[in-house]
Amino acid sequence: MNDIKQFLNQNSSFRLDQRDLHFQLFDVLNVEQHIINTPAFSHLNKETCIQVIDLAIKFAREYLGRSYQLADKAGCNMLSPTEVTVPEVYQYVFAKFQELGLCGISAPMEYGGCGTPYVINQAIYSVLYGADPAFCIYPGFNIGAVYLLQKFGTEQQRQLYSQALTTPTMTAAMVMTESDAGSDVGLIRTKALREPDGRYRLEGSKIFISSGMHNLTDNIVYFVLARLDDAPLGTQGLSCFVVTKYALNADGSPGEYNHVSCDGVEKKMGLKGNATVQLSFGQTGSCYGTLLGEKENMGLSQLLLLMNLARVATGTYALGLASSAYYSAADYAQQRIQGTSIRAMSSPKAERLPIIAHLDVKRMLLDMRAKVDGMRALVLKAANYSSLAITLHDAEGDAKALKKKYETLADLLTPVVKAYCSDQAWTVCETAIQVHGGYGYISDFPVEQQCRDVKIMSIWEGTNYMQAADLVRSKLSLGKSSRAFGYFKEEVINFCEQKQQFPQLADQFEQLETATTALSTALATFGDWLSGGEMEQIYLMSTRFMNAFGDLTVGWLLLENAVAAQKAIADNQRAYDLSFYQGKIYAVKYFYRNTLAHLGSKLRAIADIDETFKELNADHFPQF
Amino acid sequence: MNDIKQFLNQNSSFRLDQRDLHFQLFDVLNVEQHIINTPAFSHLNKETCIQVIDLAIKFAREYLGRSYQLADKAGCNMLSPTEVTVPEVYQYVFAKFQELGLCGISAPMEYGGCGTPYVINQAIYSVLYGADPAFCIYPGFNIGAVYLLQKFGTEQQRQLYSQALTTPTMTAAMVMTESDAGSDVGLIRTKALREPDGRYRLEGSKIFISSGMHNLTDNIVYFVLARLDDAPLGTQGLSCFVVTKYALNADGSPGEYNHVSCDGVEKKMGLKGNATVQLSFGQTGSCYGTLLGEKENMGLSQLLLLMNLARVATGTYALGLASSAYYSAADYAQQRIQGTSIRAMSSPKAERLPIIAHLDVKRMLLDMRAKVDGMRALVLKAANYSSLAITLHDAEGDAKALKKKYETLADLLTPVVKAYCSDQAWTVCETAIQVHGGYGYISDFPVEQQCRDVKIMSIWEGTNYMQAADLVRSKLSLGKSSRAFGYFKEEVINFCEQKQQFPQLADQFEQLETATTALSTALATFGDWLSGGEMEQIYLMSTRFMNAFGDLTVGWLLLENAVAAQKAIADNQRAYDLSFYQGKIYAVKYFYRNTLAHLGSKLRAIADIDETFKELNADHFPQF
Repeated sequence: MNDIKQFLNQNSSFRLDQRDLHFQLFDVLNVEQHIINTPAFSHLNKETCIQVIDLAIKFAREYLGRSYQLADKAGCNMLSPTEVTVPEVYQYVFAKFQELGLCGISAPMEYGGCGTPYVINQAIYSVLYGADPAFCIYPGFNIGAVYLLQKFGTEQQRQLYSQALTTPTMTAAMVMTESDAGSDVGLIRTKALREPDGRYRLEGSKIFISSGMHNLTDNIVYFVLARLDDAPLGTQGLSCFVVTKYALNADGSPGEYNHVSCDGVEKKMGLKGNATVQLSFGQTGSCYGTLLGEKENMGLSQLLLLMNLARVATGTYALGLASSAYYSAADYAQQRIQGTSIRAMSSPKAERLPIIAHLDVKRMLLDMRAKVDGMRALVLKAANYSSLAITLHDAEGDAKALKKKYETLADLLTPVVKAYCSDQAWTVCETAIQVHGGYGYISDFPVEQQCRDVKIMSIWEGTNYMQAADLVRSKLSLGKSSRAFGYFKEEVINFCEQKQQFPQLADQFEQLETATTALSTALATFGDWLSGGEMEQIYLMSTRFMNAFGDLTVGWLLLENAVAAQKAIADNQRAYDLSFYQGKIYAVKYFYRNTLAHLGSKLRAIADIDETFKELNADHFPQF
Repeated sequence: MNDIKQFLNQNSSFRLDQRDLHFQLFDVLNVEQHIINTPAFSHLNKETCIQVIDLAIKFAREYLGRSYQLADKAGCNMLSPTEVTVPEVYQYVFAKFQELGLCGISAPMEYGGCGTPYVINQAIYSVLYGADPAFCIYPGFNIGAVYLLQKFGTEQQRQLYSQALTTPTMTAAMVMTESDAGSDVGLIRTKALREPDGRYRLEGSKIFISSGMHNLTDNIVYFVLARLDDAPLGTQGLSCFVVTKYALNADGSPGEYNHVSCDGVEKKMGLKGNATVQLSFGQTGSCYGTLLGEKENMGLSQLLLLMNLARVATGTYALGLASSAYYSAADYAQQRIQGTSIRAMSSPKAERLPIIAHLDVKRMLLDMRAKVDGMRALVLKAANYSSLAITLHDAEGDAKALKKKYETLADLLTPVVKAYCSDQAWTVCETAIQVHGGYGYISDFPVEQQCRDVKIMSIWEGTNYMQAADLVRSKLSLGKSSRAFGYFKEEVINFCEQKQQFPQLADQFEQLETATTALSTALATFGDWLSGGEMEQIYLMSTRFMNAFGDLTVGWLLLENAVAAQKAIADNQRAYDLSFYQGKIYAVKYFYRNTLAHLGSKLRAIADIDETFKELNADHFPQF
């Protein structure tokens, strides 16, 4: 196996400063006290969580960091409609992944999972996704599918698939998109026909199916959105079917071919190690599936569970890749010798310095650090709200209201995690390339690939515009007295109450308070527009509002980080050397100076009605 | 020839709305009156210029637009140290390129060129580069080399190469970079040894040489920076040598092998059709070259001519690719049917619309249009100053001062064209992908490739930080009474004098005036820092200043466009339909609202001393 030799000789491309992960989980969020040590997680303790995180980091360093670039070069190949080969190194990596039980960590304990809290899971996923996303996408829906089956599936479905998805000896694929039904899910045309035995026959074609066909496992289970003949039009008439590539024998092994066929593997900008395929169901013979659960036409609302998980996961992918790109650039900048100090520039004998000594390189690194630390804070904060809600799962009275608050905040942040992180990750990867100079453009270094890999994150699982529209419509009630925004503001204001204790951060606290008020005002303007019949304006501004909301949220969370760093410095209870904590404070100052400082003018641009768009139409753009 | 069949069946990926090119050249800049009809260009008229532009567009549509995606897939291969094959389709395209004489257009007339003005040339290059940059880079240095030889070469060198480079039967490569001497040119170690016959022997290795080895022409001429044993250290000790792959026979045909060898072809993020190679000189035997001109140690200042041309060309590449990406997205958005209007969203029977009808898609298209029109205006404005200076080539007195002014303005804008356009082009390509949704991520559409291809533009020919440093240091005298900035401000203020005539654009005029004053103030702060010994602050802020300066310049030029559009509407002397001109006005309003509006807060962030960077050092970043 030639590829394996190459694999073993390959240097790992994975870089991570795990101090930040630990700092954010344990110092900033204090998950030990607030999550792990609560009764809901009595099966765990801090040490176990750290062990699992460490295991993921070790696997990322030793396996994924080596497969990452090799798999990109190898790509996926379709040999026949049922055979798509993945990069050969992935066979080796997947075997280790199964052996270590990494897939099941976050699965329910009844299927052998550790039952770690969602916030710990996102920390782990950020490591794995950042090391080799194309690999991680193969088993990427598995645990989500286990939860989907747990919530909506029949007992038989749970028994058939849950264990296999946890091990994993099977992977799951979410099968929604069709060529005319991307963002417009309601137009899905794949047909489902009732069979006398209670099963359904599927007929139709799908596109852009991640991990839709591969040779890592012997069988694949598909969650397919399709429509019955007599179903209502639109999204209300979609049902979800559980379909396998091969029918299952009594022992769960693959039996008869179920006529799921691959029509092609897409050639993509990145994620080349993952097979994104076109699939047909029932084109070569009958393809049978079972309804997810008992009720037809519930498909979209069922898959909403998976979609929400996938949106958070997308933000975590973006964080992971941005983090890897940033640390790669930091490493490169420490190693690469080039140029002199500005004052010695004209002296040919002047000492040559590592490029990290140069002001603009430091600027780029601090820019990346602020963004990456901020994304990590955002992803973990959102996941932490979900975990906090779990700790109150059987709450009553006030605690029940608190649980509702946490759930609402987790919901609120879901589209922000997806859209803001994917947009920011792209700029981080760009900067990481720039730090590398010409070397950033060639495939010897991982950063150009990280950049290519991350681009899809702003598109899939609902484009970032759809996230922005979801934010302003479903989460913020189009500016009309949103409960979610009330909770959010309360969190920020409560946080700001401690400002007196941190005079070194006084400017930032003040900026944050001003920014929060300004954002409230902009949101209230949306409410006024709605009352005034100017609904289109709200949607026109939603992408810009999402960006502003993300800036503010990250500004808040970075300041929360800085406060924790300041405490660690003051208490002299530092796990790491002083420079780690100082770096946190520099990063927040950089972000406030270079990003949050522009929030006021961004919000002013949002709060005016843009008359142009009332007149602008297709004629104003060229036709070809 | 299988590839040729594929080529002929391929749809052209090239999209251009040539109205904008014509509008900017003839309506906004009025090059007919100010350039073409002046005595310096008496050999030309408007019709000839338009014919040449049209020829380039036709070639871009019919040839480059077909080779573009095929060549990316085929890539370049090294068969031996002297044989590197380019994508096969390029042989066919190159033959046509020679036949049409497209290379020589901008060459001096004595070598069969048309002698078109620089501003027309940039218009033409923006078309060709935007259609297939990887191809255009092969002959990309040819005409620059002709000018280099004309200015610095010996009579013999001119005779040997100028015709061959114009036809072209040979290509030129600029050979500077070494593995330890990228941005730090002074460290170049390639050796030149004097031979008794007046020639020099070259020994050394170079990297990242665009078009450094290929099979499009039988011979290649290299302009190699190298160092004599007894030369001073640093950039003052570099000489430029003219070296060919094969010695020239008396008739100019390739003779004996001159031991220029290829050590490898880089695997790159994009521009895969162009061979970026590592080269060795004199490793397998003696490699001879001649000194460019008569004087040693003048290499870097000689190549400055080529470098300045290459910097403008890089901006033009970026413009070309961004333009192609924007028009591709506009085309896609007109064709692609998906989704309903916001108000009909919940009705499954609602009419499905082309996505250009959706507000956020319109926003993305207008964002791209503003940026692309702005880049085009910037590239053409800078080139126009150069051409205006040529019209005054033998001026005396006041006209001579005017010539100096135009030259100074062209110089001032050179780094801005390079850095601002490459940075903006990247964001345009990103947006073009986003408009395409999932289809933007796959290679069926050209946008993901345009995005990959454009990334190098922010790095090569001096990274964008180096451009920013050049802007503040060499062009703006570190804020100390810069003559260039005085000229620039004068141009903007003179332009603003007509504001009374355009009440519809009153807000924009006012914003422009305010922004110009604010930029002046920020620049004056640099001068104060210099006096106060805070030179590092200036360099620390130079990237941000470049961005602000670019925003302002593009804001000015877009308003100049809008004024011309308004005039065309008012005079009813419109070459195109009304919507073209209205679109111009919408674009400028969009840019002022969403970009120029933030200039104030950007400049405030620049004008404070950033204490953080006095303390920040390598320890604040992780080491691996």
